[in-house]
Amino acid sequence: MSAYKELYRRFDRHYLLRSSADLLEWDAQSMMPDGGGDLRAAQLGTLRLLAHEAVSAADMASLLADAEAAPPEDAWERANLAAMRRAWVHAAAVPADLVEARARATSSCELAWRAARRDDDFASLLPQLTEVVSLTRRVGEAKAAASGLSVYDALADEYEPGAREASLTPLFARLERELPPLVDAIVEAQARAPQAPDLVGPFAIDRQAALGRHLAERMGFDFTRGRLDVSVHPFCGGAAEDVRMTTRYDERDFLSSVLGVVHETGHALYELGLPRAWTRQPVGSVPGMGLHESQSLLMEMQAARTPEFLGWLTDAATEHLGLAPGALTRASLARHALHVARSLVRVEADEATYPLHILVRFTLERALLSGDLAVKDLPGAFRDTMARVVGIRPETDRDGCLQDVHWPTGAFGYFPSYTIGAIAAAQLFAAAVAAHPTIPSELAKGELTTLRAYAREHVHQHGARYDTNEILRRATGRGLDVDALLRHLRRRYLTDPA
Amino acid sequence: MSAYKELYRRFDRHYLLRSSADLLEWDAQSMMPDGGGDLRAAQLGTLRLLAHEAVSAADMASLLADAEAAPPEDAWERANLAAMRRAWVHAAAVPADLVEARARATSSCELAWRAARRDDDFASLLPQLTEVVSLTRRVGEAKAAASGLSVYDALADEYEPGAREASLTPLFARLERELPPLVDAIVEAQARAPQAPDLVGPFAIDRQAALGRHLAERMGFDFTRGRLDVSVHPFCGGAAEDVRMTTRYDERDFLSSVLGVVHETGHALYELGLPRAWTRQPVGSVPGMGLHESQSLLMEMQAARTPEFLGWLTDAATEHLGLAPGALTRASLARHALHVARSLVRVEADEATYPLHILVRFTLERALLSGDLAVKDLPGAFRDTMARVVGIRPETDRDGCLQDVHWPTGAFGYFPSYTIGAIAAAQLFAAAVAAHPTIPSELAKGELTTLRAYAREHVHQHGARYDTNEILRRATGRGLDVDALLRHLRRRYLTDPA
Repeated sequence: MSAYKELYRRFDRHYLLRSSADLLEWDAQSMMPDGGGDLRAAQLGTLRLLAHEAVSAADMASLLADAEAAPPEDAWERANLAAMRRAWVHAAAVPADLVEARARATSSCELAWRAARRDDDFASLLPQLTEVVSLTRRVGEAKAAASGLSVYDALADEYEPGAREASLTPLFARLERELPPLVDAIVEAQARAPQAPDLVGPFAIDRQAALGRHLAERMGFDFTRGRLDVSVHPFCGGAAEDVRMTTRYDERDFLSSVLGVVHETGHALYELGLPRAWTRQPVGSVPGMGLHESQSLLMEMQAARTPEFLGWLTDAATEHLGLAPGALTRASLARHALHVARSLVRVEADEATYPLHILVRFTLERALLSGDLAVKDLPGAFRDTMARVVGIRPETDRDGCLQDVHWPTGAFGYFPSYTIGAIAAAQLFAAAVAAHPTIPSELAKGELTTLRAYAREHVHQHGARYDTNEILRRATGRGLDVDALLRHLRRRYLTDPA
Repeated sequence: MSAYKELYRRFDRHYLLRSSADLLEWDAQSMMPDGGGDLRAAQLGTLRLLAHEAVSAADMASLLADAEAAPPEDAWERANLAAMRRAWVHAAAVPADLVEARARATSSCELAWRAARRDDDFASLLPQLTEVVSLTRRVGEAKAAASGLSVYDALADEYEPGAREASLTPLFARLERELPPLVDAIVEAQARAPQAPDLVGPFAIDRQAALGRHLAERMGFDFTRGRLDVSVHPFCGGAAEDVRMTTRYDERDFLSSVLGVVHETGHALYELGLPRAWTRQPVGSVPGMGLHESQSLLMEMQAARTPEFLGWLTDAATEHLGLAPGALTRASLARHALHVARSLVRVEADEATYPLHILVRFTLERALLSGDLAVKDLPGAFRDTMARVVGIRPETDRDGCLQDVHWPTGAFGYFPSYTIGAIAAAQLFAAAVAAHPTIPSELAKGELTTLRAYAREHVHQHGARYDTNEILRRATGRGLDVDALLRHLRRRYLTDPA
């Protein structure tokens, strides 16, 4: 067997184990009874360890060298080989016992986090979170030693290949400088605008679910290749062949569940659009989590919040929710969907303040990893940084450092992906509309076909054949470009108020 | 590390991989969209293979020998060591590539079977089923060579340790001799009895589901350690720490869904009652599938179909299904629950004809494995044997050889467990009532506490510390005793007609 073929076989096994673990995680979030937590943590620890072993055996270095010495002729296979090396660098750097220890620690820390968040009790989480930070730091150090990167860059590189603190820092500095005055201007403009009536519920959960399903279907989600369920924290998991989306429902607020479905469906369409022939190989995956996020935001923020789509959604929601004709207006929907305010909770934040929430976390997670910030001091530091950067101070840890699942699950270096995604989404939507000027009028009819086709052609079908910057460059003429996001915000909120 | 400790570690991993696969199988039956089938088959193939490898490495023989040379002092640990050897004999006999090939073949054959059954199209299943029979025969031959048993016994021993064709054959011969005249007498008696009105639906699915959940809770099912969902073929899966039961609903027939829940809850209580300290080790499992089935039948057939429980169920169903008072009578319920007739479909068969359905399969699966019956000739042979043994001839393959999932999934040698379970359930119920004469009056109040406590004490808590015969002997004074089933049937249907 050629070295490449043998590598192909190992990465196939790696994928099968990883996707099995992903399914078990979906189950843990959406189906599993509480009593299953201990077993699930142990199962995930074992599966993640075996997945790791599948691509970090002692002979992997020589297999990669042999394959690279006689590279495959096919361009996809060559790109796959490069993606294999990337994955191997991340996997092989970390000793197996550390991988397993961290998997067990994060799994049990996540359970502790659920209770701590519910009870607003950071102290109860402190031991587990301290352990997770410590193990994650060790992972980062191992990867740093293998790659020559800093600890933070080495960790972030797993989620966002090529992302570096050195380029993220000025990007966020720019946002920190430009967003607060922009937010002030938007808040002021919205205060001056006539106030449309608020959305008045209750909106029956089963009708919201039917509307969400209808939207997902209109967007092209294939229910023979995925599901839509309920979880406390909505996400898109599973595998490209069997995508598991979740949402959550609130009787008083149908818009957040509906736009949540649009968001997760954006993720799902990316998965479903990945090159089928390569699904189980590294090149068949995505080049980074930022581009993944760009696909959800392309749909949820860029498309679904246009005046055109909100107009269509007003009628669709009226029909599916069984509202009296005229009870729901586009102005009310827009007021809700486009309201900008300094608020406490990241996942509920508007797109103008969202990057500031990310900056808080980008700042603090580096301090936690470096040891400049002790885990026990996180609650206070989180409040202070929120006050300074977002301009609002949480009164509780539930609304502060306990609000996100990322750190308890060891995902340090992930947060910048959200802002990379927001920027990329602004770039891609502008480019799509420039290439296909009919998109706005389609959105007015609830049609997303052309936009989806654009995303599939320019993003999805490439898998990880190119990196995020190269995909953006090919699609929009520029790499990641923070101007596109600022331009989008100014246009939507200051020159085109809803 | 001592040899025993190392074995313990390996069987722990084996359990974590196997239970992960079991969860993926539950998902495939109850949640997975059709498009996930290919991936799921590959995932299960990999997980089953790795589970197999965890306990069949080359050094396992010497680890077992070393551990047995210095056996643990604790009786549970010694029993665990014996159970390890049993598991190892089954695992090590089969080469890894054959394990993986069979897992993939059965997974894809099951999908093909679903379609073939729906379309009544045996020809479409023939290639896959032929492959499964061939691979299963090879597995049986490998196990036969390692154990000195016949191919059939070597396969059946995996589900029913100690079960042998030589003892099953006379047992079934006795049933073949005694059941047909007994069935004739019951059918005649029921024809003479006054006819209670039939159950008239429709019965709303959500109300049936609420009733099923109520029953499971009354029986002591712990919903923090398990779930109840819907699947085409009801089963009890998951793990002892996180039991996944399923049922199915029919608007015209609430009784089958309700008694289905009682059946699966019987299985689930066994799982939940296994010794917690040993859940992930071989001795913490069950000694055989027959005893597992006995626990479902103890509840569904022995307890829930007593006149006492049916009386309580009449009131509970009236309340939960929102029926008019008096619309449902115990006589109607009993007519439905205790109706005996020669019928086509095993899973819908009554307890008097059920062993004959099993005999059909016990006969044909041995012929398929030996090659005396070609897979292509199965449809005709199934019809002929049904006509001869059960006394009714299927007109379609859907009602014939396509009705069961067992053979497509490679479960040859499993069917006798159903009859072993029916016999054991009759023994255990008689012994429980003899020890606790209050049980019938408790059943009249819908109480199952004493019966569950009896089952827990005499069956569940032992795990696999003793074999099925020894557990029955300790509980009832006799090993497996076919007389108990015949006695039960005569008493219920001929001297105590409902």
